[in-house]
Amino acid sequence: MATFPAPGFTGSPLTRLDIERDASAFFEEQLANPAARLLRLDGLKPVLDEDGRLSWGPMSEAPGDTALAMLGLIDGAPRFVALAGRPLGGDQRNESIAIARTMTEAGDGATYAAARSLVDWHARHRFCANCGRISTVARSGWARFCLTADGGCGTEHFPRTDPVVIMLAEHDGRVLLGRNLRAPYGFYSALAGFLEVGESIEEAVARELHEEAGVVVTAVRYVTSQPWPFPSQLMIACIATVESDAVTLDTNELSDALWATRDEVRAALADDPDSAFRVPFPIAIANTLLTAWVNGA
Amino acid sequence: MATFPAPGFTGSPLTRLDIERDASAFFEEQLANPAARLLRLDGLKPVLDEDGRLSWGPMSEAPGDTALAMLGLIDGAPRFVALAGRPLGGDQRNESIAIARTMTEAGDGATYAAARSLVDWHARHRFCANCGRISTVARSGWARFCLTADGGCGTEHFPRTDPVVIMLAEHDGRVLLGRNLRAPYGFYSALAGFLEVGESIEEAVARELHEEAGVVVTAVRYVTSQPWPFPSQLMIACIATVESDAVTLDTNELSDALWATRDEVRAALADDPDSAFRVPFPIAIANTLLTAWVNGA
Repeated sequence: MATFPAPGFTGSPLTRLDIERDASAFFEEQLANPAARLLRLDGLKPVLDEDGRLSWGPMSEAPGDTALAMLGLIDGAPRFVALAGRPLGGDQRNESIAIARTMTEAGDGATYAAARSLVDWHARHRFCANCGRISTVARSGWARFCLTADGGCGTEHFPRTDPVVIMLAEHDGRVLLGRNLRAPYGFYSALAGFLEVGESIEEAVARELHEEAGVVVTAVRYVTSQPWPFPSQLMIACIATVESDAVTLDTNELSDALWATRDEVRAALADDPDSAFRVPFPIAIANTLLTAWVNGA
Repeated sequence: MATFPAPGFTGSPLTRLDIERDASAFFEEQLANPAARLLRLDGLKPVLDEDGRLSWGPMSEAPGDTALAMLGLIDGAPRFVALAGRPLGGDQRNESIAIARTMTEAGDGATYAAARSLVDWHARHRFCANCGRISTVARSGWARFCLTADGGCGTEHFPRTDPVVIMLAEHDGRVLLGRNLRAPYGFYSALAGFLEVGESIEEAVARELHEEAGVVVTAVRYVTSQPWPFPSQLMIACIATVESDAVTLDTNELSDALWATRDEVRAALADDPDSAFRVPFPIAIANTLLTAWVNGA
């Protein structure tokens, strides 16, 4: 069994209260709890205190005109986040990631991930996709209802989580890394793509590797997973054995690819200045996957 | 390594043409191909021929007033399905599953799964969730655009795939099976629940088992996955080691639970009339997961 650090954005101390939060009386009760705390966000960006931890304020900081979502309990205290009442404008992805990389507390990334994905989803899904009317925040912020009392169709909508497969093709002791057209200079990573309706994880891995690199998969092994809140992916990390190391690149996605040995990947993970390539930072699951592979996954 | 049959709704012979299908010229070209075929559906239900295989008709069977989605290629011929132009009314889930269980061809279930999830998603997502306007079918049926030329906001929407964790809690050589309040008499299955934003597969498994059965997870191992097109879940099957066999049931979900040995699960999988309980049919991944477990997963 390979050992590797917990992937980024996992390990939240939140108790989610999935069952209790469906009742609006429970929500109101938690809101009135003097111990209740509000997560501070700057738009969609995390706000950290001077120790590099997520910053929580009193409930009085919540803007009067927006709904709240109850994230759950931490240390026995109810935790909330304010939902923007309007589109947020821009995804603030790169700034958010830069701040998340400086977090000092294990688990803060995961709490932020849940809050960010929820806030962003509400901001971009204010209308009912089934009938076009404005919908209403429900279930303590974990759903939206298209209320029939407002002339709506009665549909309930839940936050999206989009599964993405991210994988190393493996052949003869080496793994395939690709250089994305949009990646910074010198960066190589595992290939990745959205899983589609009507396919399994294993099938999505095989399809993506064939599309992007022309390799034929003979076996897939799952390694680990993480939530990636930009906006709400579930990253599913796998290693796929492939028939040969002959590669045909999809040049719409990738500018280059290389096969790397365990020693070469170890050097890149250690930021060795002599490494021929660089790899993603530790909170990205590509880093976890490469670490797992050099450790025997 | 445990052996088990391929999960239901996997193994499609479709080549999806994910890259090519983004170009409308390619779509029109495939549509004009004399070899093109249209998948026959009865609402959302599969239509089988007399040999129990998916039934395909000529393109002339497509209703004139609906958009088409290009599923991909099978045997070199382009394959299409007609998208309903209006809400479908009812999900026809149980009838669809009953017909899918009689399919004779490996892979037909997976082709149907992709088509069904796509048709159903378009029917229930005709409006832009960001601005409320009617959106337009795009990317050969694999997306919807909120066209600015129509006064829309320019957002692109993709079909949803909702990850669900389904898992066996394991303790001292036995696994936990629950009886859902809505399950037919005598049926027991793996516990399951939707993965939420901000959590990994492993965290969702631990949360769901704790919520539904009060057990504490110490380790999670992934087994396999399947698409479940009712309407568009990704089922992720795992086995979780738990601290003890003391169970506290969530009686909103489950009426009963039991711990079963490998011999007891084998008897249920074989439909042994003396089995104390029954388990789901083979196209459900709960069956695959139990088969994998008795075979050593």
